[in-house]
Amino acid sequence: MNAPLPLAAQIVAVLRDVTGPGSVPLHAPRFSGNELAYVQECIDTTFVSSVGKFVDRFEADLAAFTGAGHAIAVVNGTAALHAAMLLAGVQPGDEVIVPALTFVATANAVAHCGAVPHFADSSEATLGLDPVALGAHLAEIAEIRDDVCVNRTTGRVIRALVPMHAFGHPIDIAATVELARTWHLVLVEDAAESLGSTVGGRHTGTFGRMGTLSFNGNKTITTGGGGAILTNDPELAKRAKHLTTTAKQPHRWEFRHDYVAYNYRLPNLNAALGCAQLEQLPTFLAEKRRLFEKYRAGFEGMTGVRLFAEPAGCRSNYWLQTLILDDDRAGERDTILAATNDAGLMTRPAWTLMHRLPAFETCPRMALPVAQSLERRIINIPSSAILGSSGAA
Amino acid sequence: MNAPLPLAAQIVAVLRDVTGPGSVPLHAPRFSGNELAYVQECIDTTFVSSVGKFVDRFEADLAAFTGAGHAIAVVNGTAALHAAMLLAGVQPGDEVIVPALTFVATANAVAHCGAVPHFADSSEATLGLDPVALGAHLAEIAEIRDDVCVNRTTGRVIRALVPMHAFGHPIDIAATVELARTWHLVLVEDAAESLGSTVGGRHTGTFGRMGTLSFNGNKTITTGGGGAILTNDPELAKRAKHLTTTAKQPHRWEFRHDYVAYNYRLPNLNAALGCAQLEQLPTFLAEKRRLFEKYRAGFEGMTGVRLFAEPAGCRSNYWLQTLILDDDRAGERDTILAATNDAGLMTRPAWTLMHRLPAFETCPRMALPVAQSLERRIINIPSSAILGSSGAA
Ligand SMILES: Cc1ncc(COP(=O)(O)O)c(C=O)c1O
Ligand SMILES: Cc1ncc(COP(=O)(O)O)c(C=O)c1O
Repeated sequence: MNAPLPLAAQIVAVLRDVTGPGSVPLHAPRFSGNELAYVQECIDTTFVSSVGKFVDRFEADLAAFTGAGHAIAVVNGTAALHAAMLLAGVQPGDEVIVPALTFVATANAVAHCGAVPHFADSSEATLGLDPVALGAHLAEIAEIRDDVCVNRTTGRVIRALVPMHAFGHPIDIAATVELARTWHLVLVEDAAESLGSTVGGRHTGTFGRMGTLSFNGNKTITTGGGGAILTNDPELAKRAKHLTTTAKQPHRWEFRHDYVAYNYRLPNLNAALGCAQLEQLPTFLAEKRRLFEKYRAGFEGMTGVRLFAEPAGCRSNYWLQTLILDDDRAGERDTILAATNDAGLMTRPAWTLMHRLPAFETCPRMALPVAQSLERRIINIPSSAILGSSGAA
Repeated sequence: MNAPLPLAAQIVAVLRDVTGPGSVPLHAPRFSGNELAYVQECIDTTFVSSVGKFVDRFEADLAAFTGAGHAIAVVNGTAALHAAMLLAGVQPGDEVIVPALTFVATANAVAHCGAVPHFADSSEATLGLDPVALGAHLAEIAEIRDDVCVNRTTGRVIRALVPMHAFGHPIDIAATVELARTWHLVLVEDAAESLGSTVGGRHTGTFGRMGTLSFNGNKTITTGGGGAILTNDPELAKRAKHLTTTAKQPHRWEFRHDYVAYNYRLPNLNAALGCAQLEQLPTFLAEKRRLFEKYRAGFEGMTGVRLFAEPAGCRSNYWLQTLILDDDRAGERDTILAATNDAGLMTRPAWTLMHRLPAFETCPRMALPVAQSLERRIINIPSSAILGSSGAA
């Protein structure tokens, strides 16, 4: 009997089998609906900018799709996070708990508030924040004083908790909500990657005080660049709109602004694209699920690696399909990344953990054994919805 | 002989004569070129987001048009100002001199750096910063210590000077450059409104260390939302690109970021619109100049009001045509605003002066007699390029 193929070659073979020939991006957008028609309507009516019906419609459609009471469209997911944290009351000098395993925007938005990220470990079961481990950490370092959570070690207020649904896979949200309540932390879900992902039928991003979305070009749906804040509180929704539109007082001609605010408006042109994309989201989600099934069949029985499947009780949007190497195969990660990318199959590892970036090296953190292990073992593989469409290879 | 018509009625008559019938906006964009073709190309190729040829082309075209060494496209003019000030070295607790008579973004961007705006007076001749009056003020309150300008009253470093070319009319830039040099202030021109405006043939926004542009829907050309940073320094241009694109290190698959940075990217979709708009800018500028001539003929001889004309040696883009009431007619401003808007002719006053907004009430400022006078006397009138096209009324 011949020696089995090296793991990298086995993975290349499965990916190629599922994706078909050619150069395969990690995640390509698809514009097969009303994109051009809606964008043309913006151009024909000259409503391309901050005012226009597509912004209102996109917000209404997002609220309807996610079940959030309100959606406020903004210029991108980073702006959504920044505004949400300000609205959560994050002050300069506060701490905000974010996962170490996240895209840099989550931690940057904390820094943009003048606050300090405090890094939390991940769960092997969800790839997102581990509420049990975080609870144990808080019990050790924090206490409630005058109704706020204080980090006894640093003396700073821990104001908010911002978990992230990594690659679209929902975290253990029930325990996280409970943890936030116990420790008086404002819960803001970074749902940038999880549009279409639910827990017990309820959409991610709607469990906390606010949730944030991203419509960057690499996300499940795109507006070119864009984002949104979700909230169930109508008063907060109004404040979010005001904060992200320069806090201008409504007046026929006068320019008066209530406080230092932001120009985080999503242009109508981009919202038009978003409306067209949102119409196709159910199709994209079905295709991404089908792609997951194809990969599952392909990776079934392969030793050394597993395909990540949505946690029980959750529905993942499968934004990025995720391979997890066995611990003893972590050393092969870069070989696999090189082999796949060399073969025209775009793959990538998890983000460098936040506490290893120079900007965040000295920030407070709990022990991060799971995040550190996952960082060495995660590989995201080609995940475009089109790969799961009935016509695809 | 009949009594002359009230000033408001005279102004309505001239505006109506120039604009023709119907509801007339203050400034409408026009998409009569390759807008749809370029946007369609984005959709067809799926390059709508942060990567794409239109971003590169828009930057190159902007540099070519303005004569700036480099242009860095960003998500809007506010982001351009914020990034430029950070690159100018503005630190939390610094002061930055900005005109009291400006759109709130100029002052907000200072606050976004954690710095404090210091408000300067305007010139009746340019409507922008008065370098002579500011020089006298600095001589009184500031001194150079260890190569930096210190406000003796507040003890804070005055790091930068951010004049603004109001309504597109260039300021006295030569004296302002000299003043910045004398007082060791980094000069950043807020050229949000002055694309196409020049002084001695050189484009506004290219005299300082950096200049910033806006392509909001109400500007001379629009990208829906967008902005740019201009600079002649290639090293600074590189830093501007890095700072506005999350400071990600180039790598085939790794995610490492050099410092806390921003997602201020202009999507390719918006840049596509910008490329098409820029092709038509010479036409728009010619039309806006023709509109100025029409208004000039209309307002010639009217007592109580004058039409603002570009300062000597300058070419204004005439972004917003500007009426200036005589001092003794300032009390009629709101009557005129009401009469014109009631007649479907959109007009507006100058912005509320920055030091009268609650956020900036306690900020340092010099005496502001001219800005205060102009605030009571300025009325911007319908200014769309189309109104000056040969086919227009
Ligand atoms: C987890 C996470 N948070 C925030 C963001 C920021 O979104 P954007 O790129 O739209 O600013 C992203 C996506 O880029 C993300 O993946
Ligand atoms: C003087 C001035 N500065 C800055 C800006 C900000 O630009 P933006 O609206 O694109 O953020 C504007 C335009 O809105 C402006 O008029």
